[in-house]
Amino acid sequence: MMESWSFLDPVESNFRPLVVIELAKGTKEETIEWFTKRIVDKKANGGAQLLIKPLVTENGVENIYLVGASHLRLLLGAETVGLVKECNDNSMRTFTYSSRKTFKHFADDNHNFLTMAECQYIIKHELENLRAKNEKMIPGYPQAKLYPGKSIVRRLLTSGILVQIFPLHDREELKKLCHSWYGRVKIGYQPLDDIRCYFGETIALYFGFLEYFTFALIPMAVIGIPYYMFAWEDYDKYVMFATFNLLWSTVILEVWKRICAILTYRWGTLLMKRQFEEPRPGFHGVLGINPVTGREEPVYSSIKRQLRIYLVSLPFVCLCLYFSLYVMMIYFDLEQWALDYHQENESNFSSLMLYVPSIIYAVVIEIMNRIYRYAAEFLTSWENHRLESSYQNHLILKVLVFNFLNCFASLFYIAFVLFDMKLLRQSLATLLITSQILNQFAESLFPYWLQKRYNRRMKKQMCSKKTDTDLSLSEQVNMEKEMGTYFGTFDDYLELFLQFGYVSLFSCVYPLAAVFAVLNNITEIYSDALKMCRVYKRPFAEPTANIGVWQLAFETMSVISVVTNCILIGMSPEVDALFPDSKMDLVLTVALVEHLLLAIKFIMAFVIPDKPRDIQIKLAKLEFESLEALKQQ
Amino acid sequence: MMESWSFLDPVESNFRPLVVIELAKGTKEETIEWFTKRIVDKKANGGAQLLIKPLVTENGVENIYLVGASHLRLLLGAETVGLVKECNDNSMRTFTYSSRKTFKHFADDNHNFLTMAECQYIIKHELENLRAKNEKMIPGYPQAKLYPGKSIVRRLLTSGILVQIFPLHDREELKKLCHSWYGRVKIGYQPLDDIRCYFGETIALYFGFLEYFTFALIPMAVIGIPYYMFAWEDYDKYVMFATFNLLWSTVILEVWKRICAILTYRWGTLLMKRQFEEPRPGFHGVLGINPVTGREEPVYSSIKRQLRIYLVSLPFVCLCLYFSLYVMMIYFDLEQWALDYHQENESNFSSLMLYVPSIIYAVVIEIMNRIYRYAAEFLTSWENHRLESSYQNHLILKVLVFNFLNCFASLFYIAFVLFDMKLLRQSLATLLITSQILNQFAESLFPYWLQKRYNRRMKKQMCSKKTDTDLSLSEQVNMEKEMGTYFGTFDDYLELFLQFGYVSLFSCVYPLAAVFAVLNNITEIYSDALKMCRVYKRPFAEPTANIGVWQLAFETMSVISVVTNCILIGMSPEVDALFPDSKMDLVLTVALVEHLLLAIKFIMAFVIPDKPRDIQIKLAKLEFESLEALKQQ
Repeated sequence: MMESWSFLDPVESNFRPLVVIELAKGTKEETIEWFTKRIVDKKANGGAQLLIKPLVTENGVENIYLVGASHLRLLLGAETVGLVKECNDNSMRTFTYSSRKTFKHFADDNHNFLTMAECQYIIKHELENLRAKNEKMIPGYPQAKLYPGKSIVRRLLTSGILVQIFPLHDREELKKLCHSWYGRVKIGYQPLDDIRCYFGETIALYFGFLEYFTFALIPMAVIGIPYYMFAWEDYDKYVMFATFNLLWSTVILEVWKRICAILTYRWGTLLMKRQFEEPRPGFHGVLGINPVTGREEPVYSSIKRQLRIYLVSLPFVCLCLYFSLYVMMIYFDLEQWALDYHQENESNFSSLMLYVPSIIYAVVIEIMNRIYRYAAEFLTSWENHRLESSYQNHLILKVLVFNFLNCFASLFYIAFVLFDMKLLRQSLATLLITSQILNQFAESLFPYWLQKRYNRRMKKQMCSKKTDTDLSLSEQVNMEKEMGTYFGTFDDYLELFLQFGYVSLFSCVYPLAAVFAVLNNITEIYSDALKMCRVYKRPFAEPTANIGVWQLAFETMSVISVVTNCILIGMSPEVDALFPDSKMDLVLTVALVEHLLLAIKFIMAFVIPDKPRDIQIKLAKLEFESLEALKQQ
Repeated sequence: MMESWSFLDPVESNFRPLVVIELAKGTKEETIEWFTKRIVDKKANGGAQLLIKPLVTENGVENIYLVGASHLRLLLGAETVGLVKECNDNSMRTFTYSSRKTFKHFADDNHNFLTMAECQYIIKHELENLRAKNEKMIPGYPQAKLYPGKSIVRRLLTSGILVQIFPLHDREELKKLCHSWYGRVKIGYQPLDDIRCYFGETIALYFGFLEYFTFALIPMAVIGIPYYMFAWEDYDKYVMFATFNLLWSTVILEVWKRICAILTYRWGTLLMKRQFEEPRPGFHGVLGINPVTGREEPVYSSIKRQLRIYLVSLPFVCLCLYFSLYVMMIYFDLEQWALDYHQENESNFSSLMLYVPSIIYAVVIEIMNRIYRYAAEFLTSWENHRLESSYQNHLILKVLVFNFLNCFASLFYIAFVLFDMKLLRQSLATLLITSQILNQFAESLFPYWLQKRYNRRMKKQMCSKKTDTDLSLSEQVNMEKEMGTYFGTFDDYLELFLQFGYVSLFSCVYPLAAVFAVLNNITEIYSDALKMCRVYKRPFAEPTANIGVWQLAFETMSVISVVTNCILIGMSPEVDALFPDSKMDLVLTVALVEHLLLAIKFIMAFVIPDKPRDIQIKLAKLEFESLEALKQQ
């Protein structure tokens, strides 16, 4: 292995820029020199052994650098990050440089063996793992302290010397991808494998889930339409619809796990070993010895963190929840006022006015969700979690609880306190549709319009009439560095999660919700695709094997929806009429049915295997081989 | 590695017998010769490289063989099975022969580095992995077919040539263990580490769980006593007791996971890699290619198995459940008859007669459970599962469902159909106490008495007055080979599971159940210890990291008990009196409380980490080290 590192040529003729590094204006010369030297330095000397070139524009050098790597370097990097690729015998195996010949499509001159997203991921990994040796500080910046083993890039980022690192778009590939993805109106699947090659597994998995979820909603939507069209109000039909919905939602979540396993097996991430998690960039503390690694690094007492969580964050979240409920009560006052107004002067205008409170409330909910999001991010960051995963879990928990209450509290109140099914239906429809329109607009269309305007201005400045693919490298870099940053799939999943809530929590009252969800998701696929390709900087690929905590969130929602739907059905006058003598029997029957449904749900989740049989066999085969290899040693 | 195998001396002067092999009387000479040759043969020739000696008694050679191994052979075997031992730096690591010097208490002349149970486990593993090479059949038995890779010992067992293999007791050690375990009456913990050294992890973990469970029941028992003594019938006290019980049962099950992790980390099994599972002995099918291993071995279509499960086993289980309910109805007829009798001639005798139906029913339940057990074993074996674990899971599921219904159906019927709390209390007490007495008797005391009688007869035959520790080897082997075989911890866990049901399902009606459970478990520890040490053959040690499916079973029971207790409290006249106006409000309140309790349960299970923090850090440290080692390669 050591030999392969040594015969790497530090300068290669065909330099292909992959990643852009933007340093702050006025960064000291000695810092730049030290940093670039560390990037190109040999592995044995503690460098990253990558290639780096300054970007030269008409205005001269602008502290923007392009990073690339030789083909061999990338292959060795693929081994370091533990990429899993397909072999000639169609099995998936962890790539190693020594066994490279056994992999499908491998040839020493095939520079497409690794996708561009993979190359960029490797470079990001190598840059982040560039660690301080004996430096006590960043040269030229005495206040930016270093200690042995500290990631240099992370310190540069937190001290503001490094503005950003982002991967370059590949204009050719992007054009092809856009065309096959959303360029033409067609009915069919998204090119998930191409998306994965270009954007990486996390984003491809999101689009896979979005597509799957849309397809899964279609049966609900199809069954829901006649309820609206023929205004069916029969008891048995509603019960059938709700029962179908509840079981269906369990089935689709279980089947998704299987589809996810198929996708990530094909992409290799199902087999990828988990890397050891380094502290997240914002983590700080006094220097101490990490009990796990034995290295000197900042440590922060877990008790202090717990105190911050339970004494500050938890009360703050509760306060926000209370505030959200308070706003809800104002909404009901407004609603009452609109109703009074409508009854006093009955006109077309006044009946339209009936919808105004809901719409205002929907807008307020969206605004509150966004403000709370910032507060939650600030608080979670202040809690000073050591690992990114722990930070993410705490953030997601905070945001989910608040958004759930904020979006659904009014519906729960209408349903179970006011018992007003008409208002529930109207409120549900207004909230669902308004939030969908707002989201699509705020998330994709508005940024797209901004971006387009900016691009036009840029091009005018450059006095060029070239199309995107003809741009020079420096023009491309300058354009892309001003684009917004995509902060991950969190908001996208959250939107789907809330939509799932609107569809399933009160499905027996408003069967049309699934129809709106399907329509929204179809346009969502297009607007999200547009957003990824045109509005934001290219994000770094992130390998992942599943949708993580969202699976749990969706499953929890489907459990809650069993409870709400059972109560709703129990409250309907049709069901009421079936038990004329005893309300007791009614409630007991509903409770019994609810428990039965929950039991069936859990049994189904238990019985349906999480991975299809052929994937299970392939995994068992790999495990068997590694055990055999261990025995041979 | 290969070198270390070659310098093994096949015959060593200090032969220590560890395992006994009993062949059938009249086994052909050529078979014995071939089998013993394979056992002593070099690893390189496909042998097990163990030592074997025939047992010579006064009656000559009796087809009983003693197997041992050299010290070096055992150390190499420890590496093969992947034993985890404590290092000099107090960390737990997988033992390898090359790194032997880094392990605590290791010395080339220390023959106690491996416990006797570990040595026996290694020998069992090596014997079971003795595989056919080119033999088409067992020499001398053309009907006992072999194919390359088939385990020879398993074929010998299934064709009846091999009667049994069992590990020898160590009379000295056993005496010491008995003394510290149950020899003197004392209040304190069991010597779990010594039990683990002598009997292995599975059995030690059972006794650990039994002890933990008994301690965990004490708070319930302590709180339960005043309810009985002062005949408290206040509503609030019952609610408090039930609520405490429900949350307590969640806490104890979660805390057990942590204690289990502490124990198995110390014993090394928490870190042990799972071995590849070979087909179970009884598995049969036509020869084919296993898709996982690529080896030729019997394959059996999964569809056929599914058909057997769903078309035969499932209907059979349903029929048994129906039969159990039928027997229950007969019991209620008897109960009615006893009541009538009591009312007609009121006397002491007739009031005693009131208990007779329950006692008869309890005995019948036990008998039915035992008969059903055989049927379930037969059916599950007929389903022809490939893996022992899959066989066990199907067997446990079958047995649990039936035993649950069989034991608790009558109680559910009394509680929720007859609404007779007095009968419920009486029936519960009778069932619990009768089943405990029956179990202790049938499981330990009766076999112990049989064994003792047999031993006395044996000794009389041998005309010797020696104590157990003075017996000659041949006498010891002859005595032990006639002892019963311990078939694993299944029945012991099942007993605890049903006991947990009696205690928790109706805890708010009969708080005294926990007291009986504690008393029973204290004697259970002693009688089970007696059973292990005196009644049964020594079982082979089985490494395990947790109590497996039983954790899930206990957790399911505690969820069900939330439901039953909430209903029971809701039905009590005291609670009834709190809602004089509306039964509706009562039922809704009960349902709300139930859902809240369930939610709290799930959140608690989620929040309490499954492993204590220091074990988590130790595991992370090992993972980090292996990742670092991989990088260095």
